[in-house]
Amino acid sequence: MSKYSVILGNLGNTRDRFLSSGYKDELPKETLIRQAAEIEGVKGIELVGTWDVTIDNTDEVGELLSKYGLECVSIIPDHFSQKRWGRGSLSAKDPDIRQQALDYTFECVEIARKLGCKTLNVWPGQDGYDYILQSNLIQERNWLMENIKKVAASAPDIKFALEYKPKEPRNFSFMARASDTLLLAKETQLDNVGVCIDTGHALVAGENVAESVVILQTYGKKLFHMHFNDNYGSWDDDMIVGAIHFPLYVETLFWLKETNYDGWFSMDQYPYREDGQGALRESVRFLQMIDATLTDSVMDEIRGLVNTGDAVQSQRWLRETFFK
Amino acid sequence: MSKYSVILGNLGNTRDRFLSSGYKDELPKETLIRQAAEIEGVKGIELVGTWDVTIDNTDEVGELLSKYGLECVSIIPDHFSQKRWGRGSLSAKDPDIRQQALDYTFECVEIARKLGCKTLNVWPGQDGYDYILQSNLIQERNWLMENIKKVAASAPDIKFALEYKPKEPRNFSFMARASDTLLLAKETQLDNVGVCIDTGHALVAGENVAESVVILQTYGKKLFHMHFNDNYGSWDDDMIVGAIHFPLYVETLFWLKETNYDGWFSMDQYPYREDGQGALRESVRFLQMIDATLTDSVMDEIRGLVNTGDAVQSQRWLRETFFK
Amino acid sequence: MSKYSVILGNLGNTRDRFLSSGYKDELPKETLIRQAAEIEGVKGIELVGTWDVTIDNTDEVGELLSKYGLECVSIIPDHFSQKRWGRGSLSAKDPDIRQQALDYTFECVEIARKLGCKTLNVWPGQDGYDYILQSNLIQERNWLMENIKKVAASAPDIKFALEYKPKEPRNFSFMARASDTLLLAKETQLDNVGVCIDTGHALVAGENVAESVVILQTYGKKLFHMHFNDNYGSWDDDMIVGAIHFPLYVETLFWLKETNYDGWFSMDQYPYREDGQGALRESVRFLQMIDATLTDSVMDEIRGLVNTGDAVQSQRWLRETFFK
Amino acid sequence: MSKYSVILGNLGNTRDRFLSSGYKDELPKETLIRQAAEIEGVKGIELVGTWDVTIDNTDEVGELLSKYGLECVSIIPDHFSQKRWGRGSLSAKDPDIRQQALDYTFECVEIARKLGCKTLNVWPGQDGYDYILQSNLIQERNWLMENIKKVAASAPDIKFALEYKPKEPRNFSFMARASDTLLLAKETQLDNVGVCIDTGHALVAGENVAESVVILQTYGKKLFHMHFNDNYGSWDDDMIVGAIHFPLYVETLFWLKETNYDGWFSMDQYPYREDGQGALRESVRFLQMIDATLTDSVMDEIRGLVNTGDAVQSQRWLRETFFK
Repeated sequence: MSKYSVILGNLGNTRDRFLSSGYKDELPKETLIRQAAEIEGVKGIELVGTWDVTIDNTDEVGELLSKYGLECVSIIPDHFSQKRWGRGSLSAKDPDIRQQALDYTFECVEIARKLGCKTLNVWPGQDGYDYILQSNLIQERNWLMENIKKVAASAPDIKFALEYKPKEPRNFSFMARASDTLLLAKETQLDNVGVCIDTGHALVAGENVAESVVILQTYGKKLFHMHFNDNYGSWDDDMIVGAIHFPLYVETLFWLKETNYDGWFSMDQYPYREDGQGALRESVRFLQMIDATLTDSVMDEIRGLVNTGDAVQSQRWLRETFFK
Repeated sequence: MSKYSVILGNLGNTRDRFLSSGYKDELPKETLIRQAAEIEGVKGIELVGTWDVTIDNTDEVGELLSKYGLECVSIIPDHFSQKRWGRGSLSAKDPDIRQQALDYTFECVEIARKLGCKTLNVWPGQDGYDYILQSNLIQERNWLMENIKKVAASAPDIKFALEYKPKEPRNFSFMARASDTLLLAKETQLDNVGVCIDTGHALVAGENVAESVVILQTYGKKLFHMHFNDNYGSWDDDMIVGAIHFPLYVETLFWLKETNYDGWFSMDQYPYREDGQGALRESVRFLQMIDATLTDSVMDEIRGLVNTGDAVQSQRWLRETFFK
Repeated sequence: MSKYSVILGNLGNTRDRFLSSGYKDELPKETLIRQAAEIEGVKGIELVGTWDVTIDNTDEVGELLSKYGLECVSIIPDHFSQKRWGRGSLSAKDPDIRQQALDYTFECVEIARKLGCKTLNVWPGQDGYDYILQSNLIQERNWLMENIKKVAASAPDIKFALEYKPKEPRNFSFMARASDTLLLAKETQLDNVGVCIDTGHALVAGENVAESVVILQTYGKKLFHMHFNDNYGSWDDDMIVGAIHFPLYVETLFWLKETNYDGWFSMDQYPYREDGQGALRESVRFLQMIDATLTDSVMDEIRGLVNTGDAVQSQRWLRETFFK
Repeated sequence: MSKYSVILGNLGNTRDRFLSSGYKDELPKETLIRQAAEIEGVKGIELVGTWDVTIDNTDEVGELLSKYGLECVSIIPDHFSQKRWGRGSLSAKDPDIRQQALDYTFECVEIARKLGCKTLNVWPGQDGYDYILQSNLIQERNWLMENIKKVAASAPDIKFALEYKPKEPRNFSFMARASDTLLLAKETQLDNVGVCIDTGHALVAGENVAESVVILQTYGKKLFHMHFNDNYGSWDDDMIVGAIHFPLYVETLFWLKETNYDGWFSMDQYPYREDGQGALRESVRFLQMIDATLTDSVMDEIRGLVNTGDAVQSQRWLRETFFK
């Protein structure tokens, strides 16, 4: 069985551009951590900078994680929720902002080390552009790569999982797709720079998630982290796993095992109006159901299916194997 | 249990713009009909004009249907596969073409009557436009409505199920969405004009299929026919039911029952490279699995879910009810 | 030349789910109103409830509008930015919330009357659902219609322009598309209930904006209001008009004139990181450029194009007419 | 001014899955070639295998090109229009088919050499999959890469431009996006393997075309060829350039010049119901209009815009520079 984790903030308040005060109430951090720990099978937690952890409260947060028996799976630096990053962070046109973003990312390395956390999950959501003719595409993409390289070169003990997403909050992100981001990771020439797949981001990118897994693993074992959720296909709706799609999760888990992915299965949702703990729990259970089915003999059956390529046979197999 | 049918042409050769000779071989009509009859639970067949049936071979086709115990569920007039309809049929700018399309549709009524078929499933696929400033939108939309009205008014014994689709083969179809088409149907002021939902077309239109069912049924019991298939969301991929999505079929079947839909569940796929019979059979089985689950007590459970609106609870219920 | 207006909030701060404190600073209301008045050609303003106007500050706002010579074009009731509407307003499952939403909408009628404003632009953004099996689709759609009907029946002096949008903030809105919303408007059987097209919402719905104009005008002159912006097609990016598309605005303005639309051309954008006044001004200028080109003789030329339907000719005409 | 070419087949008959006999009539090859040569500014032609050229008629075709003064810009091997390639060509599961596809590609190299053509534009449209669990993603992707490598290694005098497209005729193509295809090209470790951008394919992939240009050029000058057309964003509608979008072509041409792209600007459309020659001519003229505007001083202005990143300024500049 795989290792399951959740992002702490998924349990907290949720906002959007229309309801900026939020759909829910603010809860104390300890409540959130306790709720995470209560989800059966969850052993790890991801923390978002600013929202969940800062250099100033790292020790306090670490103690809470210990108290509830959770391992810190990744730190997600806050490159997106501060006004200063509004027009970009590590690739901002303004050199002062770029430097601040760089300094802050170094700081996140320190936070991670203090928490015994091995991974920085880097999602520079504000790095990109909205309008045509708004970006010096060569220069800005290069700043992004160089700045990631600087931090990663200085911290070989930390893995840098670059999380891609085609759009939002910018209309175009520089790290938009699996392969774009892999190219950037390879350009750093550093073994500790890889990629994080968020299943919902991959769907919005029009990718078949399993193929993205294969591409990243084939070109140098570069899949460092996995975020799970579901959506309707055109936007990052961040829903409970299995709410829309089914067979894609089977294929994704098959190829994760087949390519020896040994990282975490982390839930990354945005339960705007749902009970956060319940939403995460349901996602974990849905994945565990598939996970438990993929025994050695079932893995062999799937190998047979993908080598045969008979869609009728595959659909029948899926129905008979998973449905009552 | 609901009534299941298939479209005959789904069992035959398949083509596209790149491989116009087709991915498969041509099979004799009787073979196709026999294959349809062999699918467990299938009692009805839909016939496409030109491809499957013409005024000249109606008797012959009728005999074959009798021989294999199939009921003709609908005639789908061929408003799309002839060069003369390339720029529109019932709404073509050319008055001669419009008249030909009208005459041909009257002919299809005769075919239906001869076969004891109660429904014309009208999909005027070539009626629409590709480019901006290419259509006199008021005039052409009106021609379409008027011509459908003429035929339907003359044949009160036949139901006219108007099948909508947002695009393909035109970039914009005049019958594009459930509500657009309902408006047109209502404008005819004829009880025998309604709408056909193709689940895949609804997905491409961004509709939640269940809501389209509800809209059509609420505004005057106007859902006349159902076509089932699955796709990835952005194009009419015409795949096996359940290949991509799962919960949407549960919700769709729930609302079909809840609104007392008593028409057929017809399979409409395009198994380009698959065994046609197998592809249709799998779709039928997938729907039958859900259909059989929706007992009176389960219907009551779902009524509770939709009245409560707790997504966590609904997702748990779906997992526990349908998955092993 | 048409009448131009803007939505006041477009000039203020902008937020999203990642940066909820906003990309910009808060400006005094008078500054926003002054900025609106400074845009050449803009004579009208739309006010959003809560954000721009409440029953308590109506007089004060009215004085500012007078001071700057702006006409209040519409009140947009706030059915979306308050926590109590998080799971729906006029169609909420909770009867208390529905009543509150109804009361508040009546209050907005009073605000409008005080300001000499003739239109309520109703966008119930929270009314819809996110998950499958989350909504009693029949009941909730009906509550929405009935509540709109109640308010509109009581205020025949006010036009109710129902603004549709396929998704956001809910994954599915009840008022999702032009025709769905027209059906609801017609169901009220009230002359003062119609529809507002937001060009960006129509694009996300996969509609050709001009055809939506024609549908609404053809079925009873039901186009009451227009919101203009641009986007990349899959999301409501709320950008400057003309930033992505060009010919669609020509066709849209042609059909607005051809169907005798006499309402406002209102800008509705979300200039997250742009100078708000500049963004609105550019949109107005882009539309004015097209508007000014559509003289009587040019209108005649376009009538010829749409009746001929020759795409090559239309594209040549567009290039030669509009480009240097 | 850049070099313009067209794909010969764009002038011929057009078909789709509904009208497989075609929307137009078949014209003699010489007529098509003459029509191409008549388009002002067009000096090059691309030929599709099977449809336009085979090993048996190469000399004859070459003479016609000479007669009409056209240079053969690329050969597009037919990896898509033959029944044997229906389930894949260079990556087919069937080893015989893979070998046939390999042999045929070598043959296309001979055709190219005979015609003095320097480029094979490889679009393996049937190589991919439709259903989940249908492909051995590692194995099949590798077969594709290895077979391309074999041919390219043997023909260092020929450039291999790999054309990507997210879907159609398969639901998922192995060469789906710019970066995926660049990764494959780089994996061959051959200087003569690069990528072709089709603007419409890039749009369907959700890419900003200019950024794809920059990625390919930045990672080793790998942009070998350009195909131009327009579409509505969700499907490869293959329309006249400028029919939908405008600013994107300005940005694309800017970055093509800025990154010293020296290949052809080739038109690749599918004028189903339009006059083919007229459709291509309009596209060429639209691009020439932009091309001619991009003088040295205008290039400098754009450099200023992309370094500033002020969207309001860019939109104003676009309007004032290009529109009357």
